[in-house]
Amino acid sequence: MQLLVDLGERSYPIFIESDAYRSENLSPLVENKKILVVTNETIAPLYLDQLTRQLDSAQVVDTLILPDGEQFKTMDSLNEILTKALSMKLNRKSLMVAIGGGVVGDMTGFAASCYQRGIDFIQVPTTLLSQVDSSVGGKTGVNHALGKNMIGAFHQPKAVCIDTNTLNTLPEREYAAGMAEVIKYGLIYDADFFGWLEENIEQLKARDEDALKKAIYRSCEIKAAIVKEDEKETTGKRAWLNLGHTFGHAIETLSGYGRFLHGEAVAIGTLMALKLSEELSLIDLSVRERTAKLFHTLGLPNTIKGISSVSEFVDVMLLDKKNVNAKIRLILLSKLGEAVLTEDYDGDKMQSVIADFVD
Amino acid sequence: MQLLVDLGERSYPIFIESDAYRSENLSPLVENKKILVVTNETIAPLYLDQLTRQLDSAQVVDTLILPDGEQFKTMDSLNEILTKALSMKLNRKSLMVAIGGGVVGDMTGFAASCYQRGIDFIQVPTTLLSQVDSSVGGKTGVNHALGKNMIGAFHQPKAVCIDTNTLNTLPEREYAAGMAEVIKYGLIYDADFFGWLEENIEQLKARDEDALKKAIYRSCEIKAAIVKEDEKETTGKRAWLNLGHTFGHAIETLSGYGRFLHGEAVAIGTLMALKLSEELSLIDLSVRERTAKLFHTLGLPNTIKGISSVSEFVDVMLLDKKNVNAKIRLILLSKLGEAVLTEDYDGDKMQSVIADFVD
Repeated sequence: MQLLVDLGERSYPIFIESDAYRSENLSPLVENKKILVVTNETIAPLYLDQLTRQLDSAQVVDTLILPDGEQFKTMDSLNEILTKALSMKLNRKSLMVAIGGGVVGDMTGFAASCYQRGIDFIQVPTTLLSQVDSSVGGKTGVNHALGKNMIGAFHQPKAVCIDTNTLNTLPEREYAAGMAEVIKYGLIYDADFFGWLEENIEQLKARDEDALKKAIYRSCEIKAAIVKEDEKETTGKRAWLNLGHTFGHAIETLSGYGRFLHGEAVAIGTLMALKLSEELSLIDLSVRERTAKLFHTLGLPNTIKGISSVSEFVDVMLLDKKNVNAKIRLILLSKLGEAVLTEDYDGDKMQSVIADFVD
Repeated sequence: MQLLVDLGERSYPIFIESDAYRSENLSPLVENKKILVVTNETIAPLYLDQLTRQLDSAQVVDTLILPDGEQFKTMDSLNEILTKALSMKLNRKSLMVAIGGGVVGDMTGFAASCYQRGIDFIQVPTTLLSQVDSSVGGKTGVNHALGKNMIGAFHQPKAVCIDTNTLNTLPEREYAAGMAEVIKYGLIYDADFFGWLEENIEQLKARDEDALKKAIYRSCEIKAAIVKEDEKETTGKRAWLNLGHTFGHAIETLSGYGRFLHGEAVAIGTLMALKLSEELSLIDLSVRERTAKLFHTLGLPNTIKGISSVSEFVDVMLLDKKNVNAKIRLILLSKLGEAVLTEDYDGDKMQSVIADFVD
């Protein structure tokens, strides 16, 4: 299966297949170029050789293996990638390839965006989360001690290669966290897809290949449509993708990067956003219950411990990139299949929702 | 005087006047916003108060004062700016203002480009070099131990405020280095302007205000025209601005950042490029002689000491961003007022030119 992210001169294909990074897909981008492949210590032994074998038309291929984990999504790691690129004397026609999860993809994309003010890169996402979310749409970056994804660039890849086989080695927790983002697409954009997910949740949990490909394809299709409408997050539409993320980022920041997986934090955040939508009478109880049931089937967490206060939580949310003034902008659900970006809600209700979850 | 850099939705004005950063010019960009002003230890006592007084319509103004010098154009300084921005909780509608030379402007612009994936910034260049070169055109970045300006982004400012009064406090060496870039515009684009510079070199050396404004205006006009033709350096036209820079960057790298001013290194590099153009029979001897005479009047250096070997020099040049393959791409002069980007020249002749200058 193949899909086009339609962004004019920045358009690119997403290959969704069991051998998505085969040389026929890669050659046009790789031929006679210097290539830096970036990955992490978990992925390197599993897929690095397989990938580099497909890069035989390149002039030079070298690799950088970073430690695995969100706590390494830092300026220091970014510097390592850039230093490696410089020591290889990559030029403006050279290419970076990211193979790994969202951390590797976001950092490599950011490194590509600022190496010599911008070179091309390819995403080979190996986690479900990065396949349906971070590898598509051009958001790249690193974390900062004072906030997640605060430093980065919009830089679209030249291709995204989603090899569904890589999911066979994905740990259960990470798989479930990715599936939470798939469910998000149903919530914000497509009630029918949400219904399909409910019908197929057991097959999806069992990683049935056909069900999985369909879920990934539709997720990427929805993401591509939203990114096309609002590539650089100026109209508010792209913010829909952030359902659950403002709460989720605060959870990640306050619990220390690494305790919750990003997708786990977002799953909890999504339930918080649905709860608030409900309190504000935008949607009825059933949407949250149906979502909670899906999350429960997948074994996702639904509560947070160890966060001291609601006000601390709110403080972190105030730093969210969507905010324009001192008001926290949130993505809420206006109905199943449609979201809304708003700062016009009752702040006390938001605080009581936070209190419900952090207690 | 006012000039428009015409880049569609990224267009912006350049104000060239003795009170260029007065509040009438700044207000539309500043009103009700959080502003981070970045400067250095040299400029802060001279102009910082004057500038912040003009930002009275802002919501909040805070400042960051960095150490002065090319050796501080690093990822560490970039991080300082970003940390300051985060601690101020700047959002996507916030603004950075750079007041200082090219180092401050390039770093602040890069910080603005990657803070929350991009916020607006204003350039207030206080050196002649940054007024006629780095503040216009959107090239931002930092140095890396392995190469100058290797990390960065294309990010256009929202306005450039050139206050010619700031040149009164500029040290002689820096002034002369900036004037070398002014002369470059004549060489690559406008033989008449070159002739005008020859006629007015004494007034310019004496910093006569009218002559200076005219020189800055025409320089910015030429830069804006070239940037309009090739904003992201894809067609080769923008590379014309790099006359003398490939040699110059190698001189800076090998002599250690800080020994030569950028403009001084470029002045030597320009003479090298003219010498090579001459050896290749593209131009006659007179162009280099006339240029050398202008440089001599300004007191610019014309030779390099302490660089051990031609091959070391060539190695550094090989890392230049213009290079596509293993060949060094150079800007040469095809005639007075017109440049050419080429990798099709006799390499031995280039080496002998380098030998002439490094001995």
